[in-house]
Order: sequence, then C-alpha cells, then structure tokens
Amino acid sequence: MKPNVCLYDTTLRDGTQGEGVSLSVEDKVKIALRLDQFGIDFIEGGWPGSNPKDMAFFERMKEVKLQNATITAFGSTCRPLVAAADDENLRALLESGVKAVAIFGKSWDLHVTDALKTTLDENIRMVSDSVRFLKSQGLTVLFLAEHFFDGYKANPVYALRVLEAAESAGADWIVLCDTNGGTLPHEVYEIVKTVKGSLQVKLGIHPHNDCELAVANAIAAVQAGAEQVQGTTNGIGERCGNVNLVSVIPNLQLKLGYSCVEPEQLQQLTKLSRFVAEVCNMAMPNNQPFVGNSAFAHKGGIHVSAVLKDPKTYEHIEPELIGNKRRVLVSELSGQSNLLAKTDELDINVELDKQEAREIIQRIKEREFQGYQYEGAEASLSLMLLAAGGKLEQLFTLDSFKILMEKSADRSILSEATVKLQVNGQLVHTAAEGNGPVNALDNALRKALETHFPCLAEMQLTDYKVRVLDESGATAAKVRVLIESGRNGEKWSTVGVSTNVIEASWEALVDSIRYLLWKEGCKLSEPEEKVEARAGIVNH
Amino acid sequence: MKPNVCLYDTTLRDGTQGEGVSLSVEDKVKIALRLDQFGIDFIEGGWPGSNPKDMAFFERMKEVKLQNATITAFGSTCRPLVAAADDENLRALLESGVKAVAIFGKSWDLHVTDALKTTLDENIRMVSDSVRFLKSQGLTVLFLAEHFFDGYKANPVYALRVLEAAESAGADWIVLCDTNGGTLPHEVYEIVKTVKGSLQVKLGIHPHNDCELAVANAIAAVQAGAEQVQGTTNGIGERCGNVNLVSVIPNLQLKLGYSCVEPEQLQQLTKLSRFVAEVCNMAMPNNQPFVGNSAFAHKGGIHVSAVLKDPKTYEHIEPELIGNKRRVLVSELSGQSNLLAKTDELDINVELDKQEAREIIQRIKEREFQGYQYEGAEASLSLMLLAAGGKLEQLFTLDSFKILMEKSADRSILSEATVKLQVNGQLVHTAAEGNGPVNALDNALRKALETHFPCLAEMQLTDYKVRVLDESGATAAKVRVLIESGRNGEKWSTVGVSTNVIEASWEALVDSIRYLLWKEGCKLSEPEEKVEARAGIVNH
Repeated sequence: MKPNVCLYDTTLRDGTQGEGVSLSVEDKVKIALRLDQFGIDFIEGGWPGSNPKDMAFFERMKEVKLQNATITAFGSTCRPLVAAADDENLRALLESGVKAVAIFGKSWDLHVTDALKTTLDENIRMVSDSVRFLKSQGLTVLFLAEHFFDGYKANPVYALRVLEAAESAGADWIVLCDTNGGTLPHEVYEIVKTVKGSLQVKLGIHPHNDCELAVANAIAAVQAGAEQVQGTTNGIGERCGNVNLVSVIPNLQLKLGYSCVEPEQLQQLTKLSRFVAEVCNMAMPNNQPFVGNSAFAHKGGIHVSAVLKDPKTYEHIEPELIGNKRRVLVSELSGQSNLLAKTDELDINVELDKQEAREIIQRIKEREFQGYQYEGAEASLSLMLLAAGGKLEQLFTLDSFKILMEKSADRSILSEATVKLQVNGQLVHTAAEGNGPVNALDNALRKALETHFPCLAEMQLTDYKVRVLDESGATAAKVRVLIESGRNGEKWSTVGVSTNVIEASWEALVDSIRYLLWKEGCKLSEPEEKVEARAGIVNH
Repeated sequence: MKPNVCLYDTTLRDGTQGEGVSLSVEDKVKIALRLDQFGIDFIEGGWPGSNPKDMAFFERMKEVKLQNATITAFGSTCRPLVAAADDENLRALLESGVKAVAIFGKSWDLHVTDALKTTLDENIRMVSDSVRFLKSQGLTVLFLAEHFFDGYKANPVYALRVLEAAESAGADWIVLCDTNGGTLPHEVYEIVKTVKGSLQVKLGIHPHNDCELAVANAIAAVQAGAEQVQGTTNGIGERCGNVNLVSVIPNLQLKLGYSCVEPEQLQQLTKLSRFVAEVCNMAMPNNQPFVGNSAFAHKGGIHVSAVLKDPKTYEHIEPELIGNKRRVLVSELSGQSNLLAKTDELDINVELDKQEAREIIQRIKEREFQGYQYEGAEASLSLMLLAAGGKLEQLFTLDSFKILMEKSADRSILSEATVKLQVNGQLVHTAAEGNGPVNALDNALRKALETHFPCLAEMQLTDYKVRVLDESGATAAKVRVLIESGRNGEKWSTVGVSTNVIEASWEALVDSIRYLLWKEGCKLSEPEEKVEARAGIVNH
C-alpha cells in the first residue's frame, strides 16, 4: 500500500501571479469552497500584509466552514537583523487567524548574499528563529526552501544546512521549491532522494513549469519520497505557471496507486478544472490533459472506428474516472461512421439513408470551408442534421432588421434595433434598445417571439465569442461568432459566420433560439389562431 | 560529447489531427520551409492516399528546394494477406515521390487480434514484407511501432519480435510510439533501455501528451539511448497533442548538452513557434514554456526587483538563447519600480516625479478594474504614460459618429458609418461603407484623417479580438477589444473597453492611430494653414 500524497493548492496566491489572472475576494471564497469539496488538504489563500484583498479573504474565511481543508497563509521568514517576534510580516501572518502558515526562506547561497544582502549564518538564524516563533504560537508550519534545486546544485552543504535549521526548529513540512522551473526530472529525483536520506521531517515539492516538465518533476519527487505536492488548479501562475494539480492528481492516483482524494471526488476533477477556469475568466485549452474538451476526442477515421470497438485501444484511462467524456468529432476528415456515431451522441432521432448522409457530410465540409466550426457548436450541427432529416419545423422567418448606433463626444453610445419577422403567419415588428448592437438585436428578437414561445423567457446567453478567421484582413475579415446559451442548467452552443460581426451574431442567435424551441417541442399554433392573426401586423 | 538528436516534425500530418486545426496546401508549404530553415531533419508532410490535399502537398514539394530537411510521407504497413508490392497504400507512398517514408505497424498483440483481426504471425509478415519492399525501392524507411509501450507491458516478447522483424528487414529507424500518451517517464526510460540492449538499429521516440508528460517522456527516451524525437511545433495534435518540439529542443540542447540545431537556429525558436501558431490560426498560450509571451515576464514585486539586479536569480535560461525576451508586467500588483522599468522598456522619454508616478499607477489600477488590460496593449499604455508626462499632442477630437446597418431576408447586410471630427481646427465630416460596422467606422475615420496624416495609408489592422469580460451577462456584458496594427513590419496593440463592442472598438482604433502619429512625430499644421482651414467644413 503506497502512502497518501497531501495536496496543497496555491491557486489563490501563486496562481494570481499569472499574467491576466485577477480574482476578487468573493471569487477566492468560491474557489476555496470548491477546492475543499474536492478534497484538497491545504488551500493557500494569500500573503497577509502584501495587499488589502488578501487580508479581506482571510477575514471572510473566518465565517466559512470547510469540510476538510486547512486555509493557509503565505509569507517569508523574518528580515535580516530583526527578531522573528518583532517582524511585521510574521505579525501579519498571526493576525490573519489561520491555523497553518507557509513561509519561504532562501536556500541558495547566491540569493542570500546578492538578493538578501546578508550573511549565510544570519540567513540560518532567520529560518530557525521564524519557524520556532510560529510553532510557539501553535501553528502548523511549512517551510518553503526557495530555489532549493538551484541552491543544492551550487552549494549542497549550505542548502542542506538551511533545511536542517528548519527541521530542528520544529517545521511540520519542508517543501523543496523549483522556483525558476529549470530543474529536470532526473535531477529532482536524485536530489529529493538525498534530502530524504538526511532528514526526518515530511517533504513536499513545489515545481514550476518553465521547461514543460512540472508534472514530471512532481511525480519524480513523490517517487523519491516526497509526500506533498504544491501546485495550482489548471497550472496557472507566474511565467509558465505552477505545476498543474489537475494533471498531477490522476497520474499519482490512477497510474501510480497513491491515494490523494476519494474516487468520487476524483470524478469531480473535470468540473473543478472548468469551474476554476470560469471564475478566473480564462479560456480552457481544449487540449488540456485529462480534463480538456479534446482530451478524449477522436477525429482520425482509424481511431474512431477502433475506439468504438474497444475504448482501451486508444484511451489511456476511462474518461469517466475523472468526470470527462469521450467525443467523436465531425470534421473534414470524417467519414460516414463518424456522422452516425454523432447523431447517437447528440441524441437526435433522424434516419439518414446513404445518399442523405453523403449530402449532409458534403454540406458540413462546405460550411467548414467557409469558416464554420461545428466542433464547438453542436446545437447548430443538430439543427442541420434535423433539417436534413425533415424533422425541423420553421417556426419563424426573417423579413428584415435594422440597427442604428449613435455616439457623440459628450454622450455615451446608443444602440437601437428593429426586427420584422413572420411568426405563425403574422408579421411581427418590434424595436428595442440594448447595451450594444447585438444585445439590442437580441432584445428585439425576443420581444418578437416571447409571446408565441414563453419558454424563451428562461433562456439566457451565457457566453459570446468572436474569432477573426483571416487575421490579415482585420476589421474587414470574416468573423466567426460562437454563442453559448443556457436554461435551467442545460447549455448549448451555436455558430454564425460572416464578414459582418452583426450578421454572424444574428445567425448564431437565431440558431440558439431554434434549438431551444426544438428541444421544447414547440409547434406552430392551431389553424383558427392563424386566421385571426393574419388580420394585421402585430406591433409589440 | 553527447550525440546529436535527430528532429522529426509531424505538424503537417499528426498536428492536423488536432481539434480545430486545418491547413491549406500553401499553409503546409510555408510551414515546411520554416521548419527546414530552423534545422528540422525530417518533415512529415501527410499520408498519401488518405486525402487529395496531402497528395497535392507532395506534388508541390517536388518544385521546392530545401536546405537540409527530408520530406517524409506517412503510411501503414501492407494489409493482412496482401503482398507489400501489391498494396495500394504502399503504392501511394511510392507515388508521392519522397525519399523517406514512415510506416506504422502494430506491436500490441491486442491490436493485432482485435483491431486488425489477423494472426500475430501474419502481422510479423506484414511488417517485414513492407519494410523490405520499401527498402528495395531505395527509400529511407522509418518503422513506427504503434502503441509500443502498452504492447510491451502486455506482451514484451511479441512487442520485441515486431521490432526485430523491422530491423531484420532493413529499417533505418525504429520509432517507439506512446500512441495513447499514457506511459510515465520512468517506464519509458526502462523500456527504451531494454530495447536499446536488444537491437542495433537507431531508435526514435513518438510521445503524446495525455498525461502532461510528453516532454519528460521524450527526454527520458533520449537519456535511455533514443536518437530521434518525433513531435509537433507547439505540441498540436489529436486529443492533448503530440510532444511539443519547441520545449524538447531547448531542454535537450541547453540543459543536457545534446546537439539538435545550430545556436543561431535555436535563436529562431520563438519566431518559429509564433509563425506556426499564426499559420494554424491558433492562439498562442501566453504561458507556453520557453517561447510564450509570459515565459520571462515578471510581475510580483520581489521577483521584479531581484530579476533587474541579476536575471539568473529568477530565470532558468537566458531568453535570448531561444529568441524570447524578458518583460516586466504592469499590473495591479505593481509598484513604482515596475513602472520605471516599463517606461525604459517601451522607450518612452518621459520624466515622472514621485507624485506623477503614483497618480499614473492609480489610474492604471482604476482602468484595470474597469476591465482594461495593458499587458496585451502596450501601445495604449504608452499613450497613457505620454499623456501623463505632457508629451502627447491631441491631433484630432471626435464630435460624433453614427452607424446604420440594414439586413433583409433576400439581401446581404449593409453597414454605413459617418464620422465628424475636429482636425487641426477643421470640422471634417466623412461617410464610408464597410464589411461590418467596425470596418465601416475604420474606413470613415481614415478618410477623415489621411489627407492630414498620409502615413496612415500604410497602416494596417492586423488582428482584432473581442473578449467578453463578464460572461454571465453575455450580449449585455462588458467587452474588451484588442486591436493589433502594423506598418512596415512593426506591430503595436491597443485596447478599448465598453459594454458596447462598437464603442470599445472605436477606442482601440483611435489609440492605434494616435500611437502611429506619435511614433511618426506628427504635429498640428502651421498657423497660416489653420486660418484657411477654419473657413468651412471640409467634406471628403
């Protein structure tokens, strides 16, 4: 039986050092709650004293009850020539009210003399005094040996002396940091092995991803005897990021037999990753290992037919173990078997004969050539398949729309849209304003349709993305708009393409509405109503 | 002296299996030329016979002269019960006109019996016959043992028998594929070591990134004796991608002392990576190891001051070795020292006293809070700093603009913009159409300014990105527009934020023009011209 590996997540502190990452206090609370549910042991919340937001987080967390995790505050050892008990930074750690603290100290002699501008002995005193002081206050203390691997390579005797000082002073954990991310896995393995032989205290590893080797380094350290991994969710963090715990955990647990979280918690891994990406407002790379949208997606014809026969042939683990799922991609490389697998996956009950299937594949290819992409817009694909199978009723058609925007130096911009639709044999003409042209159009369109189809009132647009297809043409180039819509927790995505961003948005908007109406089984009204309605134009 | 490691790039074949990746024949030619210049040894161009585009590429490459690389065609062994000389796929390889071929064959017994539905002996015959036939045609032959590591773990005797068959038949290289990407580095090391002890032929490694371990696996294989790495530029490829050669190369060459390319070629690594990302129309992740925009970016206050003292303290290699560069980020975490480092980096000659510096940092923080992001829009940041230092002349101001769009069922959408500006004391009123609202606005704005500032005629908008900031609000949410502009090879980026995509675009458009005018040293005209101009409104 292999030992448990302790998980330490620093998304809320080291993660926010990443370029473009910024979290509000409430964002941080939301993430902390999810990490706790998932089974993370230590959640590093911030650096008390470095900025007001971090202190506000620790205040908020005093009111929040966690199931399992220990909220941890980050800081440094005391400064040179200052006693630990008098040090402002250490005082701030105590004021944060946490039960565990992680303090970093120097273990690379170059940093002591050149960055810190003090003596090697004074640095040892700082480490020892700080750990001892924090332990005397009843805290769990993790000592983070900054730049440990570079330090060990430069001066192994001194680097070990720093660790021994932390151990003697009573540190609960010593964490070896590859701060610059430049160490290779075989070096990590050998150095951790040596340290393990010299100390009694439990060891952790804190790798960075500058060489695209952070996950391998975390694994190598655990194989050499480390019992804690410090990283971030999705690997966000300064420069190339911290090690990605989302990849470390399934490797340790499913491949190597270590125990990190409960199997039911592991099934939440994909959701956790996507949740954190959303709160951080970061695009999840489709190809993210384990949890990405493409991680178990099969495109090439050979792969698809083999994976349908026996998933083990082209999948290294069962996607369900980590809450992800298998996908079959429709693309220009696809054949007919992909299309049939797809209609099953989309749960669309259409029967296509060989000729119809060939035509619809041809049509998908043409549209992909024009810039459509159905891989990220499966609701639009469903509509195409339904229409091809004669299963889609045209519930409304466009006569025309107009948009007017006006901006003067002293007034903010105005956007107004008018829409003329044929609905159920009536001409419906509506007008609406909005925060922008697409929003005005969306509002006018809903106004025109909501009385006929009340379910639209519950539908929300949850994401709106614009991609320029031929970037060299810039504002005159073709754009692809992807819209994600939601209703009662269900989400679907649609696509539109045009050289005009408004026309592309219109197309995706209309698809998102059509898809909901199809899902809801909406039909045209009874004939008698139609007759009444034909009497005149309805203006809302 | 460590041996050379041979580089085999399959961006053009395995890379295009990645979700969302699609390359035209000319795109493929452009990438092949760059890979050749960079020093790649084998460039896999496609699978002749699988689709017409791949064959067209090999046809085109017959006319193209390369300096160093060998264009390689990919295919499989002959089919069961078909002689190699009669096999269609092998015939297609010969017709492609290449000098080197890579053929894959099964080495996992499960795949032979279950996917291929043939006997273990027949599979050995297929491998042997196919390699011997292709060698008899004078080709360099690489044998790719598909699923080798899974196969070796399931049945090591049979997996090795397959390799021995390929070796005896005269294969020039045997490449061990981790097709499902599920193997861990220590397993790769041990298995490659064993194979190396059993065979004479040169070995290669072909890892996939499903466990975020592909780079580590490539390195482990080389350390165990493999002499070729097969991967893709930026790691694109099916599911989680192939191994990223952009990370493998500097690890092998700068960290481990192997020789892959010339040092001058290595300095082109960042450019190569960005070029391929651009041709593939993929967003480069900022945090991509080695070559990402953030790979040597410093944000945290401690890091910034230390890295300016001595880069070695926070950088694992010199960014110049791979053609990347150090950046200092301006962000809400920044202090005054970051701002001063930034004005130097941007080459802006403004002197700010302490109070002014504090004010501008405060202003940046407020704007970042509103959703601006200057990390990706340094031209807008430059304009703010110049304005704060009193170094920016207001060359034009907006009176108003209007945009009208009209779409009817049977006609494509029309976009028209009118713009009223004050330029040099004149009221200039212009109108223009465009492919969309932003393009119409851009056209009307240029029309109003080009006669006064002819340098604008050479400026182009090279990229246009829209990001929804609060995705839950969707079409009513705030958006951030990033515009990249170019002129004679120089590029700059600007930002605008609003709930209205048109207003945000306007702001970024105006900044991009103002930045060029500042760079060009444009001034308001002489007073006498002003007097003339004041006579009336100029309508272009």
